[in-house]
Amino acid sequence: MPEPEECTRVDWPPPPLKEPDKRSYKRRAGELRARLLELQRRLREADFPVLLVFGGVDGAGKHELANLLTEWLDPRDIRTLAYLQQRQLSPREPPLLPHWRDLPARGKLAIVLSGWYTPGLLARARGEIDAEQWAQRLAAIAEFERDLVADGALLLKVWMHLDAKAQRERLRSLLADPAQAWQVQPRDWGHLHLYEEFMAATEPLIAQSREAGLPWQPIDGRHPRARSLAVTEALADALEARLAAAPTTTAAKRGRGRQAAVPDRLAEVAQPALDKGEYRERLHAAQAALHRHSQRLRLQQRGLVLVFEGWDAGGKGGAIRRMLQALDARMLRVHRIGAPDARERAHHYLWRFATRMPAPGHIAIFDRSWYGRVLVERVEGLAPPARWQAAYAEINRFEQAWTAAGNRLLKFWLHITPDEQLARFEARREDPLKRWKLTDEDWRNRQRWEDYALAANTMLQRCHAPQAPWVLVGANNKRHARVTVIESLNTMLDNAD
Amino acid sequence: MPEPEECTRVDWPPPPLKEPDKRSYKRRAGELRARLLELQRRLREADFPVLLVFGGVDGAGKHELANLLTEWLDPRDIRTLAYLQQRQLSPREPPLLPHWRDLPARGKLAIVLSGWYTPGLLARARGEIDAEQWAQRLAAIAEFERDLVADGALLLKVWMHLDAKAQRERLRSLLADPAQAWQVQPRDWGHLHLYEEFMAATEPLIAQSREAGLPWQPIDGRHPRARSLAVTEALADALEARLAAAPTTTAAKRGRGRQAAVPDRLAEVAQPALDKGEYRERLHAAQAALHRHSQRLRLQQRGLVLVFEGWDAGGKGGAIRRMLQALDARMLRVHRIGAPDARERAHHYLWRFATRMPAPGHIAIFDRSWYGRVLVERVEGLAPPARWQAAYAEINRFEQAWTAAGNRLLKFWLHITPDEQLARFEARREDPLKRWKLTDEDWRNRQRWEDYALAANTMLQRCHAPQAPWVLVGANNKRHARVTVIESLNTMLDNAD
Repeated sequence: MPEPEECTRVDWPPPPLKEPDKRSYKRRAGELRARLLELQRRLREADFPVLLVFGGVDGAGKHELANLLTEWLDPRDIRTLAYLQQRQLSPREPPLLPHWRDLPARGKLAIVLSGWYTPGLLARARGEIDAEQWAQRLAAIAEFERDLVADGALLLKVWMHLDAKAQRERLRSLLADPAQAWQVQPRDWGHLHLYEEFMAATEPLIAQSREAGLPWQPIDGRHPRARSLAVTEALADALEARLAAAPTTTAAKRGRGRQAAVPDRLAEVAQPALDKGEYRERLHAAQAALHRHSQRLRLQQRGLVLVFEGWDAGGKGGAIRRMLQALDARMLRVHRIGAPDARERAHHYLWRFATRMPAPGHIAIFDRSWYGRVLVERVEGLAPPARWQAAYAEINRFEQAWTAAGNRLLKFWLHITPDEQLARFEARREDPLKRWKLTDEDWRNRQRWEDYALAANTMLQRCHAPQAPWVLVGANNKRHARVTVIESLNTMLDNAD
Repeated sequence: MPEPEECTRVDWPPPPLKEPDKRSYKRRAGELRARLLELQRRLREADFPVLLVFGGVDGAGKHELANLLTEWLDPRDIRTLAYLQQRQLSPREPPLLPHWRDLPARGKLAIVLSGWYTPGLLARARGEIDAEQWAQRLAAIAEFERDLVADGALLLKVWMHLDAKAQRERLRSLLADPAQAWQVQPRDWGHLHLYEEFMAATEPLIAQSREAGLPWQPIDGRHPRARSLAVTEALADALEARLAAAPTTTAAKRGRGRQAAVPDRLAEVAQPALDKGEYRERLHAAQAALHRHSQRLRLQQRGLVLVFEGWDAGGKGGAIRRMLQALDARMLRVHRIGAPDARERAHHYLWRFATRMPAPGHIAIFDRSWYGRVLVERVEGLAPPARWQAAYAEINRFEQAWTAAGNRLLKFWLHITPDEQLARFEARREDPLKRWKLTDEDWRNRQRWEDYALAANTMLQRCHAPQAPWVLVGANNKRHARVTVIESLNTMLDNAD
């Protein structure tokens, strides 16, 4: 275990704050607000988002602080995120997926109330999970936060603390006033009788965040004015430091490592042919089986994600259409992924896929996918090396979260040889009905065949998992490719659980 | 009832089509595909979306046709929309809301399979609703479609027909082949034993669409080649006609009508003051009551939408924050509505609100709203007169659908006098912490006070409904405004059901 660095040391429990008098609060609050407004102006032009995550006990001012910041700053660039546990309707929804979907765009600030820590902390305080399970959840959260930070996000985690006595006093004073008693919610945690359990569950959270290098900043929440100054000052300091830093410092920290030799798996792909008669027979049989599988997935409420990657003119569209023939359009979406638009570029690259993952029992087919990060973005230099190198692990985590919740995932690489591609490009060029499919970019990509092959082979090596495997499909013969895709999916679903 | 016009006449049942031989099919299909590709290219630059809606019996080729079009055309500009009934999880979700959310952007084509007609048609065929209820649903759908067409959408509705004998033959031939039998789904409708009921339910659908001026085009679905040519030709003809027409022809048809005298309701707004002591007391009491209401709404799974409109510097933000203090952030979203971005401008103006309506039991607060259509867009000439004039009825329907499903809606106009606004603008200009709130636009809007007042008064008159009322709040005194907003909401919720 590494020694905690100077900058990540935290005091726990936090030192008590002294409440300033109204006049000096007013003066300091005015200064801080002016400073934050200026920082917010600069943030708008910056290339990173800010997540201010609140944790801590009830009554320590989390909601008041969120309201205060919305009042002080321009609310158009701020969003407050909070999650009802009930919103997570299905165990098939990966726990962090809602948070991926809600990530703020670059230049924006998200205030996270009762976010990704709450369900686990609650479960631990209630004794529903044991210490080891809690540690596992914390580790998964740390990975998630590191992914955000690696992409440049500024993550500030503030833990609002009250000791048992202060909380009791705070709740009592609220309960004594009939007009304010409603503010004391009949929640399980942060409540007096669970205080000890809550604190016991909090300690590993504080300790682990320190080890992970993403420490919570604990703040004494007893006094409204003192805590307002402390939190807004912490935000201003963090923002100022981040804006002063070179834009890529954080990102460059990750994803180092030497490039090991990559086996050329593409070279091994066989290219069998298939005659029309056998094609028809096998296609119909495979479609029938796929249809049955899809009904079972729906009953089991399992989501299915299919990823199609491969060379231009490799026949992805045709293979997808043969699948569609066997599936109920009402439980299915096909996502054709091109260059990201402005809104998508302003987010983490996984965001536009997180928002497209299927609902329980539904199917999503991605015609190109998040693997663009380690294919086109790598080869064309659209992502800095440290970022696409980090993407292998990020993608594996993203996929693992999906399958761990009981969902299915299969990834196809439709492989054609350079000669076959040339023949198809030329046929497209000659056919007035298909000419639009062929762009200058296709010819340019073809020039970089070797680069793309290396990128593909690296991806096949590094992002292959038992629950999220790649299937390499010889696609020089379209009939063979179309049948193989459906048959492989059936085999995977036959063997799953 | 108006005589059906020449252009809206339809033959029912559709005349039988003759299956062309393979060679002549190939030739005509090639011509049609080239024509459609060219039309799709022109559509990309056009300022309207296309909705191709399929209806009809199972086995008549709806899904095959959707696949065919995706194969023929550039699939990046096409989306196939289909809806599982199960997706509509709650009776609180207005039936057409999912379709509003899924509207295509201008320049795009949406193929709608089992869309907004399916649930009603199914219910009618099964005898779950009577003829009059079916007629009412058809009328509501006609309004929805008219709203889309009024906004410029090209709507093409194709009804795929099979007579009882042809359907029986089609299903039998599929069932006879074990590899294809799965294509016959155990659905209730379109099936042999419901065929008569299904046809009986279809007739009013065809007849009503004719009367409404948005007729279905019935097409004989017996022969795969013949129906492919018929449908793609119908799409090409419709697209060509629409692209040739002047862009605003359709839009200009609606929303005519003389401007009647508008009562000056703003002039009647009282501006009482409220002292600090009474303010505190009433605020706390009102917040406590609001909190209880919000818990009840959650239990009843009713959505609550609050709309805030009013003059610049009228105090909307402050009033909203006083509400937030009483509400659980986890069941709430505040939407601050500014000028639409590129993505939003490419859609119907109600689209960006449809996507933000709260889930059952949740709350959405709109700081400015869809009323921008009849306020800023009217006054600044951002929408053509026919379009903003049509918006009153469109908005009323949109709101009515929301409240009819058991949800709540309250709309606040925060009213300040011109002098008070000037004083606030000047105070903002002097205060370094608030200067950013004041823009040149605010001063410009102030110049057009009379125009905005007329627009506001018109809106108050035309969009006031018992279930979706406006509350005019005198806001010269901020304390009075903040308390009144919460108290009015409580009163409304006390009296609801």
